[in-house]
Amino acid sequence: MARDAADPLAHLRARFRLPAGTVYLDGNSLGALPADAPARLADAVGKEWGEDLIRSWEGNGWRDAPARVAARIAPLIGAAADEVAVADSTSVNLFKLAVAACRMRPDRRVIVTEPGNFPTDLYLLRSVAELVGAELRLAPPEGLGAAVRDDVALLALTHVDYRSARRHDLAAVTTLAHDAGAVMLWDLSHSTGAIAVDVSGAGVDLAVGCGYKYLNGGPGAPAYAFVARRHHERLAQPLTGWFGHAEPFAFAPTYAPAPGAGQLRCGTPPVLSLLALECGVRTFDGVDLAAVERKGRELTGQFIQLVDGRLRGRGFEVATPRDPAARGSHVALVHPGAPRLMAALAERRVIGDLRPPSLLRFGFAPLYVRHVDVFDAVEALADVTAAPA
Amino acid sequence: MARDAADPLAHLRARFRLPAGTVYLDGNSLGALPADAPARLADAVGKEWGEDLIRSWEGNGWRDAPARVAARIAPLIGAAADEVAVADSTSVNLFKLAVAACRMRPDRRVIVTEPGNFPTDLYLLRSVAELVGAELRLAPPEGLGAAVRDDVALLALTHVDYRSARRHDLAAVTTLAHDAGAVMLWDLSHSTGAIAVDVSGAGVDLAVGCGYKYLNGGPGAPAYAFVARRHHERLAQPLTGWFGHAEPFAFAPTYAPAPGAGQLRCGTPPVLSLLALECGVRTFDGVDLAAVERKGRELTGQFIQLVDGRLRGRGFEVATPRDPAARGSHVALVHPGAPRLMAALAERRVIGDLRPPSLLRFGFAPLYVRHVDVFDAVEALADVTAAPA
Repeated sequence: MARDAADPLAHLRARFRLPAGTVYLDGNSLGALPADAPARLADAVGKEWGEDLIRSWEGNGWRDAPARVAARIAPLIGAAADEVAVADSTSVNLFKLAVAACRMRPDRRVIVTEPGNFPTDLYLLRSVAELVGAELRLAPPEGLGAAVRDDVALLALTHVDYRSARRHDLAAVTTLAHDAGAVMLWDLSHSTGAIAVDVSGAGVDLAVGCGYKYLNGGPGAPAYAFVARRHHERLAQPLTGWFGHAEPFAFAPTYAPAPGAGQLRCGTPPVLSLLALECGVRTFDGVDLAAVERKGRELTGQFIQLVDGRLRGRGFEVATPRDPAARGSHVALVHPGAPRLMAALAERRVIGDLRPPSLLRFGFAPLYVRHVDVFDAVEALADVTAAPA
Repeated sequence: MARDAADPLAHLRARFRLPAGTVYLDGNSLGALPADAPARLADAVGKEWGEDLIRSWEGNGWRDAPARVAARIAPLIGAAADEVAVADSTSVNLFKLAVAACRMRPDRRVIVTEPGNFPTDLYLLRSVAELVGAELRLAPPEGLGAAVRDDVALLALTHVDYRSARRHDLAAVTTLAHDAGAVMLWDLSHSTGAIAVDVSGAGVDLAVGCGYKYLNGGPGAPAYAFVARRHHERLAQPLTGWFGHAEPFAFAPTYAPAPGAGQLRCGTPPVLSLLALECGVRTFDGVDLAAVERKGRELTGQFIQLVDGRLRGRGFEVATPRDPAARGSHVALVHPGAPRLMAALAERRVIGDLRPPSLLRFGFAPLYVRHVDVFDAVEALADVTAAPA
């Protein structure tokens, strides 16, 4: 396809091992396998664990793996290496930072989020509110200005909506929070690795995100957390585990936080999953994120255009913003027959994601999705919605 | 060696892949590699992640892996399957259950632990105390009776001490806590898989433990948490992530806990590390834990006896209880030249563990350590402490 031939990122697809004949449009749920991950994991299991055993913490760099991976994620979100930690899950990191944020504003007793935030974010924020004696105030995106008043300690939002791909203006909403004196915490799970996030430029205080979507870290890969340097000194997060200690292997009886965001590490990290994540973030080596975002806009735009044209009158509604600056890198379609259609697509080896009852999600990971995949996916959608002959 | 020929567990060593010529006595820090783990992980990475991709959550059983592994750990600690969850790290699980315990006793404001508890336990318990407005009261083992009074919400202890291997009487200390109206929380990290733990028989309320020591789950393997069934209904733990929801994939806006201990799951689990842990716990298939503990007592007893005899006058002091019922499955020796000795042992391919300045730890994992290993380790110790010719 001409567009693929002209794609400056086309060579990156070779960094992945993708099943032949399959159009994979669910990298926003689980990123594809980095080509070097099987060999890396085989070595980590067979040689490092099996032969070098406990000495691998030092000798094979397991101990430094969290900081190593954090340093690679940092530039993907516009942060410095010491502002990012890799640890635990997105849920656990959200808990740490939401409690820390409330402690930064001890005289305020409100946490604001959207009612449509990702479920685990809603569950954790409600739990944090209960724990610190705060109120959880729910406001839709258009009501944030009215909801974020001078009683708000924390505004916690997901940057790109997991259903519609609607994208918040990172800088504008962060400013809105700061104007009210609130701390801003972003969940970047559906953003990082697909669009050019700049937490520093936007003045973001705190952020979290997952490693298994566009970062290609493998199923349930460890997550990351960002803390702006200006907050490092006073950060007080409650999950004070030994891997976040300044000297974990000194076995000191009292806690002393590691410098920077490193204090957000907690228990012993799941090394095998962490080394897979390292392969995942290495797929971004030398990649220009502006070009990544540009390609994502082209792929999603091309998909929407083809749905509008080729699938006209087939009962689809595009639930994703048509303004490319206002969306992430996936597209949601509403169709009353969604479950049946997604099953029929799978038979044609097109893999998307179903959110019952009527949402079809298609993710376009710019590192490995081609323009021809977009075309083939729409052809498959046309095929499964064609009137019987 | 005659003792190995008579060992009823000798056949279990074949379930592991151990480096030839190495005496590995650090399974209490990182358990050995299960023989089937390399193939399992290769399949999980290459086929399940690489080819089946997102469909593996259903089709390859990733979704049920936490419950599957929990059901295998449960009998190793005398619990029912619905009383155990596999999730996160020991540190994070300790946090969840310590907060939950304090909420069970809202009128009490003291948490008791030992000053010599494992560092991460101390850090987390202090953090929980701050968070819930409680006092952390430190009492040595012999002072627990005096410290656990009617103002105590929670007694949190590690069953087997990570340095000395001194073992608490699980039932007696649990009763001591209950007699004062306190909740009992045990850290079983240095116990499970090496000695026959019976949380149900001892009336334990809550417990946590790690997956990477005697359970052979690999570096930083996910941890487990136990909640006695009588506490399931009222359990209120703060890390209410979506994998602990009754229906994670319904994406409901409000949290409803999964039944039983399953509500202790939080975020998306690190699947690769979890599948390695599954291989680890399967090394216990059909194994009688009473026989495991018996062999551990023999190995540690034989080691102490040889140290007393063969190493007499070489400056060693046994820091582990000589009563086999009062110790776990490792032995600690104090020696002023400990760092130098451990390095010299490593040159002779005997792998133990150093706790500076003067502690040498040797772990005897009953599933794969042989009597000849004990003999060889003491010979190596004799060699490295021999007077120059």
